[in-house]
Amino acid sequence: MEIYLDNSATTRTDEEVINLMKRIMDEDYGNPSSMHHKGFAAEQYVRAAKETFCSIFKCTKEEIFFTSGGTESNNWALFQAAAANARTGRHILASPIEHPSVSVPLKMLAEEGFEVEYLNVDASGHTDPEEVRERIREDTILATVMCVNNETGALQDIASIGNAVKEKNPRTLFHTDAVQAFGKYRIIPKKEKIDLLSVSAHKLHGPKGIGLLYKGRGVKFRPYIYGGGQQNDLRSGTENVPGIAGFAKAAEIAYASLEEETARIRSLKDLLIKGLSGISGCVIHGSTDETSAPHILNVSFTGIRSEVMLHALEDRGIFVSAGSACSVHKKEKSPTLTAMGVNREELDSAIRFSLSRYNTEEEISYTVQTLTEHIPVLSRFVRR
Amino acid sequence: MEIYLDNSATTRTDEEVINLMKRIMDEDYGNPSSMHHKGFAAEQYVRAAKETFCSIFKCTKEEIFFTSGGTESNNWALFQAAAANARTGRHILASPIEHPSVSVPLKMLAEEGFEVEYLNVDASGHTDPEEVRERIREDTILATVMCVNNETGALQDIASIGNAVKEKNPRTLFHTDAVQAFGKYRIIPKKEKIDLLSVSAHKLHGPKGIGLLYKGRGVKFRPYIYGGGQQNDLRSGTENVPGIAGFAKAAEIAYASLEEETARIRSLKDLLIKGLSGISGCVIHGSTDETSAPHILNVSFTGIRSEVMLHALEDRGIFVSAGSACSVHKKEKSPTLTAMGVNREELDSAIRFSLSRYNTEEEISYTVQTLTEHIPVLSRFVRR
Repeated sequence: MEIYLDNSATTRTDEEVINLMKRIMDEDYGNPSSMHHKGFAAEQYVRAAKETFCSIFKCTKEEIFFTSGGTESNNWALFQAAAANARTGRHILASPIEHPSVSVPLKMLAEEGFEVEYLNVDASGHTDPEEVRERIREDTILATVMCVNNETGALQDIASIGNAVKEKNPRTLFHTDAVQAFGKYRIIPKKEKIDLLSVSAHKLHGPKGIGLLYKGRGVKFRPYIYGGGQQNDLRSGTENVPGIAGFAKAAEIAYASLEEETARIRSLKDLLIKGLSGISGCVIHGSTDETSAPHILNVSFTGIRSEVMLHALEDRGIFVSAGSACSVHKKEKSPTLTAMGVNREELDSAIRFSLSRYNTEEEISYTVQTLTEHIPVLSRFVRR
Repeated sequence: MEIYLDNSATTRTDEEVINLMKRIMDEDYGNPSSMHHKGFAAEQYVRAAKETFCSIFKCTKEEIFFTSGGTESNNWALFQAAAANARTGRHILASPIEHPSVSVPLKMLAEEGFEVEYLNVDASGHTDPEEVRERIREDTILATVMCVNNETGALQDIASIGNAVKEKNPRTLFHTDAVQAFGKYRIIPKKEKIDLLSVSAHKLHGPKGIGLLYKGRGVKFRPYIYGGGQQNDLRSGTENVPGIAGFAKAAEIAYASLEEETARIRSLKDLLIKGLSGISGCVIHGSTDETSAPHILNVSFTGIRSEVMLHALEDRGIFVSAGSACSVHKKEKSPTLTAMGVNREELDSAIRFSLSRYNTEEEISYTVQTLTEHIPVLSRFVRR
């Protein structure tokens, strides 16, 4: 029995995606820059992939850039938006619960002399669009607020935030890290006033090592990786054709049944919440309604340290995360839960369950049953 | 009939590599940062891959960093070596025949105020180590010379160049773009005095979208992509586990029979050269002995434009390149051939044949036969 509930860390690659990638690596392995048919065939995959994303984002092909993943996309967006607009101003407004691939570049920019200010979040981890409106200034060149938080699933009201940004200062660029939201929500950058948006493939059953950056037309911007001039000379390097095609296939699958699957995943999350409600000492972080993503649930089992719980569940074949997998390398307390005002004891015992369309009702029931049996034992052991 | 002679642009992925990647994507799809077994299993692939490269480069695991490919590796090496050492000096010495992923960052650095000076190459495309020694200065922070030129196959005497750099100024960092050399030569960075070395997987039957940067211990350096702290906090972003494992497998296969395969590929190149010697108007660029790589041959068929020849060969199922595939986006004349003093007419008619271990004697014989038949016809047509 293997129940994988760590889908916000990464997901199993879809079989259709794997088969497509296999075919490209074996047969259509050309370099899109080559002028012969083998190159043309490879280029067609890249072109088709761009069309898939254009139809999802309702944008043009010139607005899609493939990168090595969400981290590169976020670095590129922040560093180059700042560099390209530094003459206009040096003020940057950011949410305090960003993923390290946003928060670390922000720290670097602050060291370089940019004035980085952080918004507040309420106890459920939400940013108030009105606060954004108030704090955007004449010299604010960039605002960055992630769509769905990777630790708690808090969903921000991106459209209202985007509108607040632009109404106050049309020149301020609005970036959103949509890594956890993509494949769960329909995001139309132009409607939501998003200038820059980052996505990663491996969070939605696509391959690792590939992501994209959406950059609205007319956004003043610079490359981050220079060279052979691929991707309109904005992101050089031989295109990762199997990765790009696999990414597009994964997106295509996700968006073909988005509403149904999202509802089904949310019903699994609700089932988990219902099961947890019967367990004493269990505290859910953030909201559990439509203001939270369908696939992420962050819970503390008070008195039981995260690692203890994680390994106890692992012994029963259930894989979860202690906080965010992306921050394991930095032994800090979760900045998201801290910003939400979660106390120390709860911080130390937080567990993230994250679901995908591969999870079933049976798996959730088994998980609830396992928790129900284990927690009294673990609590006794820990408190002894 | 399909004869792929564009292996310096990219190569067909090895079947063993594909099968390994397929298994990882399907079964061992965890995030190496996850603390449970699924994460541990993924981490093991990364660890094993590092061991493979350590054994090839005779280095330690702390000296290997996986990137999204040769272009990122070169950008990272140049931009961050320059930034991290700017207080020591601002002089950079470079070969004039670098790949755009080196030459474009050098142009950017020059715009930022670094003093970038270019070495000379002789008619065969070689850099003289003595010239390097003479031109290294007290304030030279970086020297960059590629191992094997991607357009002509010119092999530089990297060990002598490395020694010249260090003897003149031990603080000067020595970077080499080994993208075309890796898998063809045994390169021991410490022996050749290399501080930074870039490699790409897809040039040796590995997957696209993955490469590495070797960075010698003690080299003052900074990250280029920041975030979750992966790879010792020097290259953040979820590791592309299937890509990394596939890359290592491809390297393992290449190095298991390096000398035999390299000799066999060189004999194919010699066969091609012999065949071409009977064709009038055919000019080979650069040397053809051991000072050139075993797999690359750059030839002009005077009077026949590159594109015409490329498509004529394509009609017979033979795929070659007109100049370097990586510079197709930039419609400039080949800087390598220009630096070698090749005249305009020859520039316009240059074709690159690049071989791999998948090529056979029959393929080369067929290619020679096709050229022998076609060239008189094409020449008549073109000159009419």
